[in-house]
Amino acid sequence: MAHQEHQNLINKLSSCLAACEHCADACLSEDNIDAMVECIRIDRDCAEVCALAIKFVSRDSDYASAILDRCADLCSACAEECGKHDHDHCQECAKACRECADACRNY
Amino acid sequence: MAHQEHQNLINKLSSCLAACEHCADACLSEDNIDAMVECIRIDRDCAEVCALAIKFVSRDSDYASAILDRCADLCSACAEECGKHDHDHCQECAKACRECADACRNY
Amino acid sequence: MAHQEHQNLINKLSSCLAACEHCADACLSEDNIDAMVECIRIDRDCAEVCALAIKFVSRDSDYASAILDRCADLCSACAEECGKHDHDHCQECAKACRECADACRNY
Amino acid sequence: MAHQEHQNLINKLSSCLAACEHCADACLSEDNIDAMVECIRIDRDCAEVCALAIKFVSRDSDYASAILDRCADLCSACAEECGKHDHDHCQECAKACRECADACRNY
Repeated sequence: MAHQEHQNLINKLSSCLAACEHCADACLSEDNIDAMVECIRIDRDCAEVCALAIKFVSRDSDYASAILDRCADLCSACAEECGKHDHDHCQECAKACRECADACRNY
Repeated sequence: MAHQEHQNLINKLSSCLAACEHCADACLSEDNIDAMVECIRIDRDCAEVCALAIKFVSRDSDYASAILDRCADLCSACAEECGKHDHDHCQECAKACRECADACRNY
Repeated sequence: MAHQEHQNLINKLSSCLAACEHCADACLSEDNIDAMVECIRIDRDCAEVCALAIKFVSRDSDYASAILDRCADLCSACAEECGKHDHDHCQECAKACRECADACRNY
Repeated sequence: MAHQEHQNLINKLSSCLAACEHCADACLSEDNIDAMVECIRIDRDCAEVCALAIKFVSRDSDYASAILDRCADLCSACAEECGKHDHDHCQECAKACRECADACRNY
């Protein structure tokens, strides 16, 4: 069954979604918020595409791979942006994004 | 951090989302599809609210509990409907929904 | 048909979703970003619930009214927060939120 | 402002989202539901990507065009599937999808 066969991918997407949502919110509470704007923006976009990807993979959509392709790109870009910042939530998000990008590409 | 403190809840929401999406899709492939219509409908609604709840919990939204309240109701209703059907995907979905409803109510 | 009978509501939800997404993003580009944090947060939550509500109303879900109830609350709260700020995008968003809250309550 | 400059696109995405959600639900009430399975499946996928696209266009995301690209493909495929069926909701959905695909490609 699609959602079991792809359990690792769904887990990585879910972790990435949660990490991005948390990072975007935590960035809004940082003192140097001006420096976090791009991080917030890409966190938001990455979270949305991960949420969509969980749905498409779980329902075994014919379009799952087309979406995972975009998801991998966004995760990689988000990992790069988050990786620039020392906040724990950014570093943790960068790690979740990298692992998710890899899982998307292995679909 | 919200998304770690609530990791169990996020995991249950993610499992429920995936199980509902899978169940809705698998129901569409069953021979007795006429009997599965309500199951498909509530699977779809439950999946959507779970996806929203993951976002709200992860971003530590002030409105998380208001959404989890609705999510718990929908998960319970979905568990009841899925529990009526013998298909493996329905039984598995019922279980995921029950566990998710409990986790939502413990938020 | 649900989505035609409720066309006005769907239009208000769609306008509110777009206004909230735009406002959240535009707030991130403002000089006084520190003062916009709560506006960004509630814009994000409001946008999400509007997006969910469009789906539930269009598919004539049994749970549409339960979600519209929450949506109306969030739209009212977002209108109040946005209404505090002079930026055009905030004032425009406040208006869209107020109209959407009214439409949700008339469902 | 992104969401006003792209108002026509947002309107087409919103109409397509609502038409797809309605069509998927209405197909579940048809007598010949067995013949509607692919229509339901693609309606669901198309609705999801339209909802995502509304968010990305409204927030003027750097990734809007990458998503609109996928959205246009899905809308075209959904228009083709819906166009095969005589139900009013299918014909109406096919029209909304074709117009949305065009609007996505003109972004």
